[in-house]
Amino acid sequence: MLLHLQTWPEVETYLKRSTAIIVPIGSTEQHGPTGLIGTDAICGEAVGRKLGETTNTLVAPTIAVGMAQHHLAFPGSMTLRPSTLIAVVKDNVESLARHGFSHFYFVNGHGGNVAPFSAAFSEIYAEASLMRASNRPNVRCRLRNWYDSGRVKEISRELYAGAEGSHATPSEVSLTWAVYPEAVRRMKLEPEIAPRGSFTDAADYRRNFPDGRIGSNPNLASIEAGQRLWDAAVADLAKDLAEFVAEPA
Amino acid sequence: MLLHLQTWPEVETYLKRSTAIIVPIGSTEQHGPTGLIGTDAICGEAVGRKLGETTNTLVAPTIAVGMAQHHLAFPGSMTLRPSTLIAVVKDNVESLARHGFSHFYFVNGHGGNVAPFSAAFSEIYAEASLMRASNRPNVRCRLRNWYDSGRVKEISRELYAGAEGSHATPSEVSLTWAVYPEAVRRMKLEPEIAPRGSFTDAADYRRNFPDGRIGSNPNLASIEAGQRLWDAAVADLAKDLAEFVAEPA
Amino acid sequence: MLLHLQTWPEVETYLKRSTAIIVPIGSTEQHGPTGLIGTDAICGEAVGRKLGETTNTLVAPTIAVGMAQHHLAFPGSMTLRPSTLIAVVKDNVESLARHGFSHFYFVNGHGGNVAPFSAAFSEIYAEASLMRASNRPNVRCRLRNWYDSGRVKEISRELYAGAEGSHATPSEVSLTWAVYPEAVRRMKLEPEIAPRGSFTDAADYRRNFPDGRIGSNPNLASIEAGQRLWDAAVADLAKDLAEFVAEPA
Amino acid sequence: MLLHLQTWPEVETYLKRSTAIIVPIGSTEQHGPTGLIGTDAICGEAVGRKLGETTNTLVAPTIAVGMAQHHLAFPGSMTLRPSTLIAVVKDNVESLARHGFSHFYFVNGHGGNVAPFSAAFSEIYAEASLMRASNRPNVRCRLRNWYDSGRVKEISRELYAGAEGSHATPSEVSLTWAVYPEAVRRMKLEPEIAPRGSFTDAADYRRNFPDGRIGSNPNLASIEAGQRLWDAAVADLAKDLAEFVAEPA
Amino acid sequence: MLLHLQTWPEVETYLKRSTAIIVPIGSTEQHGPTGLIGTDAICGEAVGRKLGETTNTLVAPTIAVGMAQHHLAFPGSMTLRPSTLIAVVKDNVESLARHGFSHFYFVNGHGGNVAPFSAAFSEIYAEASLMRASNRPNVRCRLRNWYDSGRVKEISRELYAGAEGSHATPSEVSLTWAVYPEAVRRMKLEPEIAPRGSFTDAADYRRNFPDGRIGSNPNLASIEAGQRLWDAAVADLAKDLAEFVAEPA
Amino acid sequence: MLLHLQTWPEVETYLKRSTAIIVPIGSTEQHGPTGLIGTDAICGEAVGRKLGETTNTLVAPTIAVGMAQHHLAFPGSMTLRPSTLIAVVKDNVESLARHGFSHFYFVNGHGGNVAPFSAAFSEIYAEASLMRASNRPNVRCRLRNWYDSGRVKEISRELYAGAEGSHATPSEVSLTWAVYPEAVRRMKLEPEIAPRGSFTDAADYRRNFPDGRIGSNPNLASIEAGQRLWDAAVADLAKDLAEFVAEPA
Repeated sequence: MLLHLQTWPEVETYLKRSTAIIVPIGSTEQHGPTGLIGTDAICGEAVGRKLGETTNTLVAPTIAVGMAQHHLAFPGSMTLRPSTLIAVVKDNVESLARHGFSHFYFVNGHGGNVAPFSAAFSEIYAEASLMRASNRPNVRCRLRNWYDSGRVKEISRELYAGAEGSHATPSEVSLTWAVYPEAVRRMKLEPEIAPRGSFTDAADYRRNFPDGRIGSNPNLASIEAGQRLWDAAVADLAKDLAEFVAEPA
Repeated sequence: MLLHLQTWPEVETYLKRSTAIIVPIGSTEQHGPTGLIGTDAICGEAVGRKLGETTNTLVAPTIAVGMAQHHLAFPGSMTLRPSTLIAVVKDNVESLARHGFSHFYFVNGHGGNVAPFSAAFSEIYAEASLMRASNRPNVRCRLRNWYDSGRVKEISRELYAGAEGSHATPSEVSLTWAVYPEAVRRMKLEPEIAPRGSFTDAADYRRNFPDGRIGSNPNLASIEAGQRLWDAAVADLAKDLAEFVAEPA
Repeated sequence: MLLHLQTWPEVETYLKRSTAIIVPIGSTEQHGPTGLIGTDAICGEAVGRKLGETTNTLVAPTIAVGMAQHHLAFPGSMTLRPSTLIAVVKDNVESLARHGFSHFYFVNGHGGNVAPFSAAFSEIYAEASLMRASNRPNVRCRLRNWYDSGRVKEISRELYAGAEGSHATPSEVSLTWAVYPEAVRRMKLEPEIAPRGSFTDAADYRRNFPDGRIGSNPNLASIEAGQRLWDAAVADLAKDLAEFVAEPA
Repeated sequence: MLLHLQTWPEVETYLKRSTAIIVPIGSTEQHGPTGLIGTDAICGEAVGRKLGETTNTLVAPTIAVGMAQHHLAFPGSMTLRPSTLIAVVKDNVESLARHGFSHFYFVNGHGGNVAPFSAAFSEIYAEASLMRASNRPNVRCRLRNWYDSGRVKEISRELYAGAEGSHATPSEVSLTWAVYPEAVRRMKLEPEIAPRGSFTDAADYRRNFPDGRIGSNPNLASIEAGQRLWDAAVADLAKDLAEFVAEPA
Repeated sequence: MLLHLQTWPEVETYLKRSTAIIVPIGSTEQHGPTGLIGTDAICGEAVGRKLGETTNTLVAPTIAVGMAQHHLAFPGSMTLRPSTLIAVVKDNVESLARHGFSHFYFVNGHGGNVAPFSAAFSEIYAEASLMRASNRPNVRCRLRNWYDSGRVKEISRELYAGAEGSHATPSEVSLTWAVYPEAVRRMKLEPEIAPRGSFTDAADYRRNFPDGRIGSNPNLASIEAGQRLWDAAVADLAKDLAEFVAEPA
Repeated sequence: MLLHLQTWPEVETYLKRSTAIIVPIGSTEQHGPTGLIGTDAICGEAVGRKLGETTNTLVAPTIAVGMAQHHLAFPGSMTLRPSTLIAVVKDNVESLARHGFSHFYFVNGHGGNVAPFSAAFSEIYAEASLMRASNRPNVRCRLRNWYDSGRVKEISRELYAGAEGSHATPSEVSLTWAVYPEAVRRMKLEPEIAPRGSFTDAADYRRNFPDGRIGSNPNLASIEAGQRLWDAAVADLAKDLAEFVAEPA
């Protein structure tokens, strides 16, 4: 159930049985020499939408540009400043809370989003917390990284062990290939497994990770693995979502 | 050429031949009892992406939630505040300008976006204008409503004349049906042609336009009309884009 | 009735018979080699104040610095960033709404203000729209360009046809001369009628329009024309204001 | 020399001999049962413009709405939030500094402006101070209250001693009458001399000062006094301005 | 009674007998070749905390970084922008007002804080003032400079007369030595008494006051004087605080 | 080496051998019926300052009020909104970077700070990342929770195992007692070990954790344990800081 494919009377009806909504979030940033710039948004959206189908939950439009300042030394990468992202999340949540939505489940495909979205949730809660008696509707937000679920972790350990890394991973690349089989692309990478390490701004990142990958060998990706990972993520998140929805707003 | 389906070396290559990029923008808001909540985003994206194909121009991720505060009394509608939208457009443009993109062509599906995006462009230009010698890259932004092109206007006059209206129009509904044939939906509407008028906030809007439509009869929409309108919009915008790209940044 | 020449008990009395207020808005920016830097503010104020007299409506202080980033390559031009302007309009409207004013009629002298003021109105409405039950007073804002009224258009077509242009127009220059007869100033302009075209930031504007004019020949201006235009604008806007005030807040 | 009555080439010429500009600032707020709502803006503008004439200095548009939150319980009063005012001052100064103006002399008519304008100056300076080598033009800002100059103080002591007070003072009322003789208005005031004290927000202010005055008896005002005060203020400020302009930017 | 050394049930109990709280504020900035960078924060805190003991009033955490943009050309100096400081004060006050605190007494050690804190108080009050009927708790804020109290002024006149100056004064240095006897440090200063004057940004400040002092000779400081000044400030402020607390919120 | 106890020439000297600085950060919020409201700031400061002594590193003023919106239903708790905190961190870092500081090591005592500080670091880095060639000094920021170091974890497991919990933990309480022995306070708690769980805003938090603790039994705390934990944290962080300082800025 995609929000953008509903009419308003259908949403009105939906709200009588559920006040939960899934919001896929991702990023638009380099993913190594072979990975798609949209990898994180594609993954967040693919998992979030299938989760919506599986659990019969409404799915809001994907937030496709996230916080990715550290990737800006690679062409095509985009970022929102954290302060902008806070405003965006606040407006998204306030809009939907106005209609009675109370449970916001963000399915995330990008590590760099975790802190700013968490800060955004606190910014939203703070408006209620700072008032002794608030006239704002109660809302509850949760962010889950699709790639952090138990079964997903198991599969990537099984398949990629020391070559999974943390950026342009074979797992996320596999998932994008499952969604876009025409995107399959392998090339000689030097070194095969990219270096690991930390980073600060874009110049620092590119200095440390010259082709954009961190600790990964995306050549190990496969459509089949992508399909397994996709199903695993949805299954895990479906359980988590059910628990989340059971919590009071 | 969708940005999210490219790799960063591919974008690097693209920038050698073109520094233009198309940004589809829309809105997520009620479109009457039968129109899709995603109508404006679907239309902006459909036209923008086909324009990208036709002209071999890169297409950035769609900004699917726009400025739609006046629709918030109908369930499912979402808005960004104008001040938030200004920050979003600024971050999008600055990110891509960092890589050398200079011409930003926004293909718009929603009237409510025109003023805030125009304000956003001025906010961006102002940073350069306020400095005698700016170290910012030159950028040029243009917004075009797909539904305002000459041929599109002709077709809607021909097909819908007095029933086109200005919200939940048969033209935009036709286009969404051309994209999503499964979305075809007609129902008895009272009155057949919705009232016209102005509005301020969400309560005022709903008071004046009880089912969400303004001046339109979306039951006249058809997949065939949608296909014609789509092609007409792309043809007109392709010409306009070519002129735009020829202007200096 | 100028707000700044009233006492507070007089405003209290006024509010018993009307909750409408006129706000003249303009800009402080170059208007070609002979036009006054204050042209747009002078025009907005002259029309707005005479409209106030004619219709017995209160007139707030003029907002004399508007959004004019594109003129900043010419000495003396000033701008507010769009984001600043949004904050200014919001504070102006909230201040007066606090006393019971509900209808805000902005008489505008500057094209560059249209988008940011429209964005500002949406920002104001959004605060009410985002709450299911808002405790904010209802407000209704309308912006009208004095130079866009029917009779004004007729007169400028009659007098200036192809030499009216869109910046430093003989019409607006005429109006400033009607207000400040000592400002009459003509000089040889090259070319007589300035070039037309579009612009982005200040450097781009000056490159395209070296003496600041767009498409106009201000040497055609006259005090008499200014007086006619002034009267025509006030007559047209008086009718429009009466309709506006009749709408619910 | 009023900026709004110049052309851009005239400003260009002016900048060759002076980079100083006077900015009159005031407020739009209640001034007791007989004082004009525009009192502070009228005074700031009257003194600032005559100062410009006397010293042959350019005068920018008056900032007529200042920081007056404490007056909002009286109809007609307007305020900008301090944060808005900071943005306004910043944009005004940056616009003019772009052309080469370096010395900004604010002639103020309202006590409530002192802190927010001072904060605004610091906000502007901070942008340069935070950079080791800034590419911003040097600017120097000074705010002077017309009513605080030595000779003005002497005259009000001589004429009004214990009835001057601090709001709706006979001195400022006199000055507005010198500018607008038709504004002369006296009425029985109870008590003759208003109470003194402090205040916080608008409700607190009105509770403490029921008719809006603080410590003053504006019935003592006269056109003659206004003329004397006006001249005295201009004479004092002319000397101060000369010293200011001599300081490096 | 330091807030950070209480438990929440103790604060709950405190609120039954008092809703006042002291907030020490200072700055972290150069204080000449021998003065401590923390001078202003140390003084604000020392006076504020002893005032809390003396009057049995709760003391909030010290705001140790204030507005000191003009000192940034000297290593170790820190500043908050005025706009940041406004947000900080607003959040501090709103947090505590939420629990029922109504009287906020800021004990200040730094002249540069006066304007931005005053602006911050107005920003806070404005939220209530702009609503006809506000649901915000009433708050009352007062800022007092410890060095401006009557007895303190007398002592510094007595001890330092023409060598007190206005930055890195022997009075404030004395007080820091009373708190940190190990900080006593004297050295040959050239000239003995620093120059006086005004300043704008950091570069201008350092140009005018090469070693950071203004008009002072801190070599005259002594621990004994510091102790006397400390006691005098607390005695004076205790009286002022009692009056403040008696005012309605 | 505390920044506030240095003079500016001493900081100038320091910068010749090191450009690193420690910033203790904490929070001011309830810590259960017996824990101090300042617990997190006390712990961050105690560890941060001892770390400074041990490693001969300069220590900036403690940021004592952090992001703690969820504690606001308990008297005495304070919060900064995440957006405010971002501005504060930005101004702190920019101030010190201006002098040449490049490595900012934040010693944190509060879980709620992690996301907003991380967002703040990204906001700072983004300014450099968004420019192709930035004129900003390079900075590198790292946040470490004192309670997450290896040895600290071991000790708390050894001493408190299932009674450590995550708020008002015996470990953090022990550390505050080591700093303030007079703060030792035990009382009957019901249940002995507090419940666990998640939370959103302040009302939700208090509903779930009625006395403020989460999963902990602070009665197990002791001064001796506090001393051990303090030493362990400093030892671990000293090693981490050395590695951090070795990284390029």
